[in-house]
Amino acid sequence: MSLPVDLIARKRDNKRHSDIEIHELIEGFMSNRVTDYQMSAWLMAAWLNGLDRRETLALTQAMLQSGKTLSLPSVRSPRIDKHSTGGVGDKISLCLAPLVACCGVQVPMISGRGLGHTGGTLDKLEAIPGYTTHLTAKAFEGVLRRVGVSIMGQTAEIAPADRRIYALRDVTATVESIPLITASILSKKFAEGVDGLVFDVKVGSGAFMSNLADARKLARNLVAISKQSGKEAIALLTDMNVPLGKTIGNALETAEAIDILNDRGPADSREITLRLGVEMLCLGKVTKTAAQARALLETALANGSAFHRFVKMVKAHGGDPQCVIDPRRLPRTRQRYAVDANQTGWISQCDPRELARVALELGAGRTRADQPVDPAVGIELAVQYGERVERRQPLAFLHAHNKRDAHKFTERVRRAFQISANRPRPRKLVLQRLD
Amino acid sequence: MSLPVDLIARKRDNKRHSDIEIHELIEGFMSNRVTDYQMSAWLMAAWLNGLDRRETLALTQAMLQSGKTLSLPSVRSPRIDKHSTGGVGDKISLCLAPLVACCGVQVPMISGRGLGHTGGTLDKLEAIPGYTTHLTAKAFEGVLRRVGVSIMGQTAEIAPADRRIYALRDVTATVESIPLITASILSKKFAEGVDGLVFDVKVGSGAFMSNLADARKLARNLVAISKQSGKEAIALLTDMNVPLGKTIGNALETAEAIDILNDRGPADSREITLRLGVEMLCLGKVTKTAAQARALLETALANGSAFHRFVKMVKAHGGDPQCVIDPRRLPRTRQRYAVDANQTGWISQCDPRELARVALELGAGRTRADQPVDPAVGIELAVQYGERVERRQPLAFLHAHNKRDAHKFTERVRRAFQISANRPRPRKLVLQRLD
Repeated sequence: MSLPVDLIARKRDNKRHSDIEIHELIEGFMSNRVTDYQMSAWLMAAWLNGLDRRETLALTQAMLQSGKTLSLPSVRSPRIDKHSTGGVGDKISLCLAPLVACCGVQVPMISGRGLGHTGGTLDKLEAIPGYTTHLTAKAFEGVLRRVGVSIMGQTAEIAPADRRIYALRDVTATVESIPLITASILSKKFAEGVDGLVFDVKVGSGAFMSNLADARKLARNLVAISKQSGKEAIALLTDMNVPLGKTIGNALETAEAIDILNDRGPADSREITLRLGVEMLCLGKVTKTAAQARALLETALANGSAFHRFVKMVKAHGGDPQCVIDPRRLPRTRQRYAVDANQTGWISQCDPRELARVALELGAGRTRADQPVDPAVGIELAVQYGERVERRQPLAFLHAHNKRDAHKFTERVRRAFQISANRPRPRKLVLQRLD
Repeated sequence: MSLPVDLIARKRDNKRHSDIEIHELIEGFMSNRVTDYQMSAWLMAAWLNGLDRRETLALTQAMLQSGKTLSLPSVRSPRIDKHSTGGVGDKISLCLAPLVACCGVQVPMISGRGLGHTGGTLDKLEAIPGYTTHLTAKAFEGVLRRVGVSIMGQTAEIAPADRRIYALRDVTATVESIPLITASILSKKFAEGVDGLVFDVKVGSGAFMSNLADARKLARNLVAISKQSGKEAIALLTDMNVPLGKTIGNALETAEAIDILNDRGPADSREITLRLGVEMLCLGKVTKTAAQARALLETALANGSAFHRFVKMVKAHGGDPQCVIDPRRLPRTRQRYAVDANQTGWISQCDPRELARVALELGAGRTRADQPVDPAVGIELAVQYGERVERRQPLAFLHAHNKRDAHKFTERVRRAFQISANRPRPRKLVLQRLD
């Protein structure tokens, strides 16, 4: 048995940990033989000196084994989940999960809440009155069996080591580490009892990974360690230099996801939904080719079956289906406030991080894990990247509870857009596919 | 006001802290706005990315200002202290402080306890029955005024930030950092209200710094930051590849220091005492030249005044002067057990760390700050580096309470000595002088 101080010294000295050492560290932490301050010293050493793939795999397994794994014996295969590394306006899980579920893939999705500039799937679902994200493992299995899809929050039994470690990383400047992010994501995802995972690794100014090289490293890590752990896996690297879709804010994003399920919605968020859906269907061997998968998904959107699957999931989670059928019944502010363009031209930039910050300050997000969010507020884009706007026409609408709040942010929202005389180059949504 | 997480991120990203940031960090830590786990993450970042001299100065000042500084208004100048970075068999403070005190330097020495392989001056003094190392600031001042020298332990008011940070460093593998060591040493020494400091930076396998380059860096840091803080300062780099003197263990070392004060004792420990004494006298401008200082010190040893000054200090601290006059009255084991040489030759190596470990396991040291030490046990060398030994003649004597304890360590002590056919090169005691 190694002393905690010796484990820390090994990583400080840039040596490689054995699997046993990693397990001793995590088990020691969970049994309080390794203190918080020792773990945070180790985390900083790991942040600065890195962990190789074998160490990352061992860390993932150790954090996974700190809790329970759902076995879902009554849920048939293929069981495939999608994980996004988080972006601005990323509501894809809400429409993607029911869509692929009605094409024959079971989706046991355990999701998270928003923190900082990124939104959280659970916060968006909870914008639907009555929707509970707290299910027991048994209830989760029941919903999956009946509906084929369930989106809930992490239970206390799933990867408790990750939860405690993440809380430390958040306050010790050790979040942005590719191996630590990898192990954190996978320890939770492996606990879902899935056969395969599709990763949406966001790249750009609105994402965790602002450059392609880092995003690629993270994607490779996620795919490699998933495969080493016996899961099918692929990753798409997708652009996050502008917000995804036309809405930022909880109920607004839920409404956009419902739009997509109704075969409408912005072209970009719809396309990302379909591209990820194709990967999930192919990973689950539902169809032989990507073209077949795409056709199946488009049919499910067109004939309303994807939408109805979402209604069914919402009902199973105690949510009010009327709010899905008529999204105007979702929580909303009395008014929306237009932010007008002060010149005519093409939208050549739309800063996702700044808009996310405004949405956060309006109340749509949180800076501490225990803060509540306001489902009603947010930002609705009137124009997206590459579109034309006329002077005095709206760029966006602020969904705020009063004029004062709206006025406070008008100028910041206006400055988040760049308008140029020339039409900008078209944006590539999917930058790379890794398997 | 910076957030703790942002301060950690700056050092993680290898940026330089402003003085204000360093003060925010330390004040935040003392007022619990910066948690233990945040401090340990910062310490690891500082360990790996370093602190420059300005940051080290700011850290020293911030830790100093976390507590009180003794002003000692009634104690006349020059007030000079010596600090050793710690070695094996290093009992020099005990004889050096009273020696220079009777040559006209006042020595307000606040010292520490042993931890791990290094011994502590306080533990050695406490081998004298009755000697208390706990004085109030007022009592310390009184002893200094009357005797010219006092050696006591750190009070709760002195650099409390250093105490709390050191406790964290000890268990988070962040001890061995030159800037952190520098700030820790100086924040305590500056609180003594001294005019000048002489540093004995030990180099070698029995010291914190095993190589000359690191020791030089530490010595330069100590001297430079002392001067920047308005103190006179010089450093000697001294050899610690073999034990200093002939004893390791508390009462044994006290007895050796008394020997030196009686103008006897091993040549090496006596010489280091004189060399450091010369520096203290010159720093205090007691004499103009080193030769004059040396003559003064040798006279004080020869005429008994240094010895009597020690007796006076021991009395002032409540210690039994009879144990100083007759060191056989110090705590001792009933017997000592010889470890014989198994070949004839010259002592070409004598591993200080291994002998220190044996002494520690015999009970002379501690591995945790709250453990008691046994004053009686230890190791007495029969031969030193460069001396000749005959087969079946003793290399050393184990001072143990029983035969079993002694036998357990005999072989390890024997193997700590290397005996060679050729006379080894003479050892240089002082490797470098830096001012």
